[in-house]
Amino acid sequence: MTTQPVTSSRLEPLGTVVPSSVPTHWYNLAADLPEPVPPHLHPGTREPLTPPDLAPLFPMALIEQEVSTERYVEIPQKVREIYALWRPSPLIRARALERELGTPARIYYKYEGVSPVGSHKPNTAVPQAYYNALEGITRLTTETGAGQWGASLSFAASLLGLTCEVWQVRASYDSKPYRRAQMEVYGSVCHSSPSELTEAGRAIRAEMPDTTGSLGMAISEAVEAAVKDPGAHYALGSVLNHVMLHQSVIGQEALAQIAEVEERVDVVFGCAGGGSNLAGLTFPFLGKNLREGTTTRLVACEPAACPSLTQGEYRYDFGDVAGLTPLLKMHTLGKDFVPPSIHAGGLRYHGMAPMVSHAVNLGLMDAIAIEQDDAFAAGLLFARTEGIIPAPESTHGVAGAIAHARAATTDEVIVIGLSGNGVLDLPAYASYV
Amino acid sequence: MTTQPVTSSRLEPLGTVVPSSVPTHWYNLAADLPEPVPPHLHPGTREPLTPPDLAPLFPMALIEQEVSTERYVEIPQKVREIYALWRPSPLIRARALERELGTPARIYYKYEGVSPVGSHKPNTAVPQAYYNALEGITRLTTETGAGQWGASLSFAASLLGLTCEVWQVRASYDSKPYRRAQMEVYGSVCHSSPSELTEAGRAIRAEMPDTTGSLGMAISEAVEAAVKDPGAHYALGSVLNHVMLHQSVIGQEALAQIAEVEERVDVVFGCAGGGSNLAGLTFPFLGKNLREGTTTRLVACEPAACPSLTQGEYRYDFGDVAGLTPLLKMHTLGKDFVPPSIHAGGLRYHGMAPMVSHAVNLGLMDAIAIEQDDAFAAGLLFARTEGIIPAPESTHGVAGAIAHARAATTDEVIVIGLSGNGVLDLPAYASYV
Repeated sequence: MTTQPVTSSRLEPLGTVVPSSVPTHWYNLAADLPEPVPPHLHPGTREPLTPPDLAPLFPMALIEQEVSTERYVEIPQKVREIYALWRPSPLIRARALERELGTPARIYYKYEGVSPVGSHKPNTAVPQAYYNALEGITRLTTETGAGQWGASLSFAASLLGLTCEVWQVRASYDSKPYRRAQMEVYGSVCHSSPSELTEAGRAIRAEMPDTTGSLGMAISEAVEAAVKDPGAHYALGSVLNHVMLHQSVIGQEALAQIAEVEERVDVVFGCAGGGSNLAGLTFPFLGKNLREGTTTRLVACEPAACPSLTQGEYRYDFGDVAGLTPLLKMHTLGKDFVPPSIHAGGLRYHGMAPMVSHAVNLGLMDAIAIEQDDAFAAGLLFARTEGIIPAPESTHGVAGAIAHARAATTDEVIVIGLSGNGVLDLPAYASYV
Repeated sequence: MTTQPVTSSRLEPLGTVVPSSVPTHWYNLAADLPEPVPPHLHPGTREPLTPPDLAPLFPMALIEQEVSTERYVEIPQKVREIYALWRPSPLIRARALERELGTPARIYYKYEGVSPVGSHKPNTAVPQAYYNALEGITRLTTETGAGQWGASLSFAASLLGLTCEVWQVRASYDSKPYRRAQMEVYGSVCHSSPSELTEAGRAIRAEMPDTTGSLGMAISEAVEAAVKDPGAHYALGSVLNHVMLHQSVIGQEALAQIAEVEERVDVVFGCAGGGSNLAGLTFPFLGKNLREGTTTRLVACEPAACPSLTQGEYRYDFGDVAGLTPLLKMHTLGKDFVPPSIHAGGLRYHGMAPMVSHAVNLGLMDAIAIEQDDAFAAGLLFARTEGIIPAPESTHGVAGAIAHARAATTDEVIVIGLSGNGVLDLPAYASYV
């Protein structure tokens, strides 16, 4: 079998009937924020980025979305068709967990693990691949940690007729062969990062031959590879504003689903690494707070081992190690911070999405740090009551919600963002059990 | 954390609102067959089994279902609540695959990979655990090959408050640590079979110390363990009539879903190992053929390496190696047949469900054998067009359907039973790619 995509007409809609419960527009929190999100800065001039600055990396449609302040952006029909494979994702009442906890609270979880790769990442991988293909790009490069994002972009690239090359953090490349196989099944090529294939990779290897890698390093490599190939673009799975935009399908669906059964939501818990799962679920609730005066509390649950929101500084920093990306105003532990090798690989990032950082800085969202053992204990309890094994990343949101529900004295309504399943993270659970 | 179930009140319904599209009854093909299914025989007397013969292994409700000829059996509300976690499973039009094949046929797939363990197996694991718990049983034993069944019963046992002990075929135990971890996350204990824990296991190890195991051997061990413990019962994931009954939710849903968009179904392809996925999807279609005169063709797709339907004899044989099970009238390669170590571990069984065997013998269903390479090629094409990576077992049905669709000259309607996803079988794909 060839690893090339099998047809070149992948951009035409197929005629799938898409349920009306799949959102028709993405929601953009920038339209409702009381103060604008600080702009990204050019790494050389430290002046606000202009669209041409980003053109070597991204298609114009995504660059426009990155700076848009329109409240709603229409979702292309082709993207909605692919979304319909797993969207709307279910919002499920966790009645068995409630009974186990003996809580008067009502707990719901929005479950993104039903996507073909098992997480929320395809929500942005699909439109990113789509807009690139529409602009005539034939090859995408990206980085990945645990592999959820690399697999998601590979999935999207395959369906939309693009090739895809992924730099995976070495620690995960060596320990998670299933994710690499998943990328290869979709026709992608996956490299261990730092690699010998890029200047950035070679420089890091010369300096730190035994490094286990980091997302920051892998981003440097993927960005460099894209910049050097006119037919290639780079795709980022979190952090940037357009990623937050795409993920808003989660929260929009959740708002509609919860409105069918509850009058209000008191508190939402979501795990936070780069911020895309958290933003996707919470920003539509936050927009409602800002526009309509509702008071839903929104809680970012980050790992205690990589506490950018609760321990980091709020300042401009690079998104990668080599300093190739724009400067982003965000909560950061510093671009050279190498997080400990925790099981929630998707949360091992030194920074945080500028939009999430801004919302936290304005006091519109809260942040808490969760210890790994507490996260796994919560994941195990969830699996043994609700039947779904949460991804290690998602267990942080579960842990936050469980602690809250145990202390609850009223019939408040809690929503958990269950960003993915833990099927490919079972060895991590086994070592905990 | 303890590995004990966390509460003892797991049998009470939780009050979940179950969609009406989740079947309320299981469908029993025995009510519509032109000739009765030959009875199971006692392994000692070779007389038809009586209910007391089975009582050491199964709860009375399942024994009654095993011999029932009622057309519909009501599904307990508690079971429907758990089904509602992933049911109704989606019926999806494979438009991208159709376009890739250039076929005039319309292809649909019924996707069981949305269940928490990724396959159709929980459809019977849940009611089996339920009826056992209702009868006061506290411990279940079973065997598993690749691990789909062991994980499914572990999932069901966890939700219903039972402990569960699984004997896994050694070849899979050694090569598939993720599945074992999945069982352990749900609180089960998993042994490599043949083990030193049973007389059957010790005898096999004495005779064949280097054996990689087989389902037949593992069944002997699990049955022996259950018989020796009055608080324990055994659970079988395929082959028996009550398993076919429980799986009928698949085909009932598919019939209702396809009727919304198509006037007729021309042909249904499903993979066949022990027969439960195949029966679950096809029996409701076959019942309709028998009652209403429709002419939907039903095709069992088995691996060429383990061809019980296409190469086996139709006769009474044991379900296990040691001869502890009842004698079943079935297509069999002989109880001592050790199938080659193909990747579709769930299809490595020497026999075939008596109800499926009977239907094939009466000419009501067809059977074809698929080579492993053709199955993987079909799986890869499916993944790169439709986006879902089929389980290695399921690729056999996909391969049958693709070959049929390539040859199609009219707009016929094809339904594929996609029994599970291949997320935990990615290394098998990687070795093929």
